[in-house]
Amino acid sequence: MIKIVVIGTGNLGTHLCRAFDASGIPESSKADVSEVELVGYYNRSGRPLEFVSAPLIKNLDQLPDADLILLCVPDDQVPAVSSSLSHQNSIIAHTSGSVAMQALSDHENHGVFYIPQSFSKKRSVDFSQLALCLEASDSSTMKILERVASSLSRKRFHLDSLQRRQLHLAAVYVNNFVNHCYTKAETILQEAEIPSGLLQPLMEETLQKALNLGAKNAQTGPALRQDQSTILAHLALLPPSDHPMYKTITQSIQETHAQKL
Amino acid sequence: MIKIVVIGTGNLGTHLCRAFDASGIPESSKADVSEVELVGYYNRSGRPLEFVSAPLIKNLDQLPDADLILLCVPDDQVPAVSSSLSHQNSIIAHTSGSVAMQALSDHENHGVFYIPQSFSKKRSVDFSQLALCLEASDSSTMKILERVASSLSRKRFHLDSLQRRQLHLAAVYVNNFVNHCYTKAETILQEAEIPSGLLQPLMEETLQKALNLGAKNAQTGPALRQDQSTILAHLALLPPSDHPMYKTITQSIQETHAQKL
Repeated sequence: MIKIVVIGTGNLGTHLCRAFDASGIPESSKADVSEVELVGYYNRSGRPLEFVSAPLIKNLDQLPDADLILLCVPDDQVPAVSSSLSHQNSIIAHTSGSVAMQALSDHENHGVFYIPQSFSKKRSVDFSQLALCLEASDSSTMKILERVASSLSRKRFHLDSLQRRQLHLAAVYVNNFVNHCYTKAETILQEAEIPSGLLQPLMEETLQKALNLGAKNAQTGPALRQDQSTILAHLALLPPSDHPMYKTITQSIQETHAQKL
Repeated sequence: MIKIVVIGTGNLGTHLCRAFDASGIPESSKADVSEVELVGYYNRSGRPLEFVSAPLIKNLDQLPDADLILLCVPDDQVPAVSSSLSHQNSIIAHTSGSVAMQALSDHENHGVFYIPQSFSKKRSVDFSQLALCLEASDSSTMKILERVASSLSRKRFHLDSLQRRQLHLAAVYVNNFVNHCYTKAETILQEAEIPSGLLQPLMEETLQKALNLGAKNAQTGPALRQDQSTILAHLALLPPSDHPMYKTITQSIQETHAQKL
């Protein structure tokens, strides 16, 4: 049985507490609790989590004995929280995509437990569908992280800090940048008084095609076929503040596919 | 019974021929064939379609008698094909998102039958899930287009040519631009030797969140929170040719959400 403390109960921390908690509500994201036990969790607000039976820890100086302390805090707080735990003998691992493992090197046994997903407190999580990306300071630490990860999902990967940063960068494209394209479309439809649900089938089909064909093979549209008259007509419809993004993505599509033209 | 001729058997034309064809293979996209009948179709290659019993028309001068001639040809060919049909008494409608209805104004009764979707010959289509966007030169033409559309889907909208161009522009964002973001992520993962399927759950969750919360409300990430150190770290990982797109989208996210900062 691996004893776990979770520090930070934002979106990810809350879902992990619920998954690791031995007697919380049953849900599809439940960890194999014969392997792991949540022995406590800490947050700055001091507010206990619903559906978690493990105790809320009042003070970072009074952590219970644990094999793994999992930091689910914002990226920029990882170093400070890590320092405040400097007398622990447990494995310390963070969950950040963009923070190097080295940020925890004050601790003998340390690692990273990164899940490339956008978590929300109100949306359920099925960890078994998610990829868990692990890095560890040494092989005995990796074994513990592997056991914790395997309690959640069979999809486990060993990525070093550079690979994880690259994955996080790719995640920015498919999450933040894609969502911003959705936002621009949403605004255009609102201003044209067109119901926003009208493009849902196209959004779904775009994703399915990219997954089935590979995104590069699935590219179509006026930028790819150098259809200058449609591009100019689109720019005429857009406010000038939206021209830089439209033009830059159009140009990037053309450069990326230059060998096809 | 409305008699239909389809001109052009690209991705959309092929799926429409199969849907309208009275005795083709049964599929979920099948039109209500008590209302419509495909009396023929034309393509430049002269190759007959599989799974369509209606005859291939050899020559545009010899079209069978029809209530509706539906042009499923590339945008830039709409005017030329329309001119070549100048002696028809049928309704002439095109299926383009970006061509104005006026392009068909040589014909007394004309209209537009636009479906904002990305069609592929090899992927099945369920027309009942899609939005059909109609425009017509007059009310009797609109009635015919409505009956044809209702044989395929209950989701029908009347959009004028300006609205349809705006919808097509929004479709470019959610299809072409989103797919290009997927492409950039795909390349980053390939170069980092990370399996491409690793981001699939994030791609799916990004779409679901945008649909559930609205995209603008769903925005997160380093651009939104003005996390300059992560942004600079990302730029350091990217080849210089990818900097303009990364920077421009980042700036557009910040400008779009400026009131939140």
